[in-house]
Amino acid sequence: MHSSTPPKNNTRSFSTWHRLLDWAQEHYRYRTFAKDAQIPTRSGLLYLVQRGTIRLNGSAETEPPAYPHQNITPAEFQLQGGDETFLGFVGAGQPFEIVDRSPFTLQAFAHTDNTSIFWMYWHDLENFPSFRREILDSFRYQHQRKLLWLNTLGQRHTIERLLGYLTLLIEEFGEPCKEGYFLPFPLTHAQIASAIGTTRVTVTRLMKELREERKAILIKEDNLICLLSPSQPE
Amino acid sequence: MHSSTPPKNNTRSFSTWHRLLDWAQEHYRYRTFAKDAQIPTRSGLLYLVQRGTIRLNGSAETEPPAYPHQNITPAEFQLQGGDETFLGFVGAGQPFEIVDRSPFTLQAFAHTDNTSIFWMYWHDLENFPSFRREILDSFRYQHQRKLLWLNTLGQRHTIERLLGYLTLLIEEFGEPCKEGYFLPFPLTHAQIASAIGTTRVTVTRLMKELREERKAILIKEDNLICLLSPSQPE
Repeated sequence: MHSSTPPKNNTRSFSTWHRLLDWAQEHYRYRTFAKDAQIPTRSGLLYLVQRGTIRLNGSAETEPPAYPHQNITPAEFQLQGGDETFLGFVGAGQPFEIVDRSPFTLQAFAHTDNTSIFWMYWHDLENFPSFRREILDSFRYQHQRKLLWLNTLGQRHTIERLLGYLTLLIEEFGEPCKEGYFLPFPLTHAQIASAIGTTRVTVTRLMKELREERKAILIKEDNLICLLSPSQPE
Repeated sequence: MHSSTPPKNNTRSFSTWHRLLDWAQEHYRYRTFAKDAQIPTRSGLLYLVQRGTIRLNGSAETEPPAYPHQNITPAEFQLQGGDETFLGFVGAGQPFEIVDRSPFTLQAFAHTDNTSIFWMYWHDLENFPSFRREILDSFRYQHQRKLLWLNTLGQRHTIERLLGYLTLLIEEFGEPCKEGYFLPFPLTHAQIASAIGTTRVTVTRLMKELREERKAILIKEDNLICLLSPSQPE
């Protein structure tokens, strides 16, 4: 956890990354966060994850009084977390940016302990055209992943949404183990529920179904989710 | 409908666009499609919309026999369109690409009549670095929009998903009218349903609620959806 994670799986030059990292540290544009700490972000800045994992959350600022049929007070609405939505992870070596667009608000949190990021303006990259291109390529890749994610969420059966969602996450962030691939950090049922548009209780029930009936997943130590490899034909 | 739509709302040089368009036409990489025609696409190619609107669809190739509780035959599954998901539009002047990632398949369709596209390989843009950067910036923008879209889909109440979804679409593609902003091409209830993970029947019921109770939308001639401007304070 204490060594810095270099950007992986891409052709980005290590030297540019480390040059920008040094520059960011000198200019107080580098910071490390504890698990679940909110990252203070500003629209227009580009953030790079040096180490750890960022969790992106969104919320729609719907005013509860506008929907009298929900019959809850604003305080209860706050307690329920409004309709906060888990939008995905950004791993080490990847960029993110936060764009607010009323009535939606995006926030970034450190998903794992010791998550470090640094940040810059886009124009700080003017002198690094190939690095900037790789950053833009990362967003292009993230866009492709989001299309797949939307594809999953369009499915009518919640259990298909859940399984598709876990599959996409583990495909992108998973690590191999003897049973298959597992997500190397925990994810609560409430977080999953907020991503696939259902309730925590439903996720708990469907996770059990995926475990016990479909034999598609298992839960490893520390509550980590493992996607089982398809069994071999007999 | 017969004049070509130039790229709008961006700084992309018209001359580069038209130079590439001429090149594409000379090399048979330009084609016009009728409404709802499927665009033959290949992974690895970059497509640019010259005129009209592209609709992106996805489907998860779940094998129906694997889910005996659904109790339908493969033929019925086909008739239901599998779980085909509407993933969004790409307008004139915008790029798209199709990346297949098992078990998900993406397809592109001409959403409006006379939709024209041309295509190239990424390496064909090597000599146009600033144009390539603008294409990548378009994908970055599309990624931001998809995050907002995911934000909407994470909401638990289907009516909130529906209203948020219509708002995002009309914000991006809408045109002004005296009542507010309207989507300038039709969208079926089945298409909306597939985007927000519900049934056509539910969309029909909730669209009625948005129209009659919430007074949030109205339906214009030719079935076009209009988002009403918030009424002024008294």
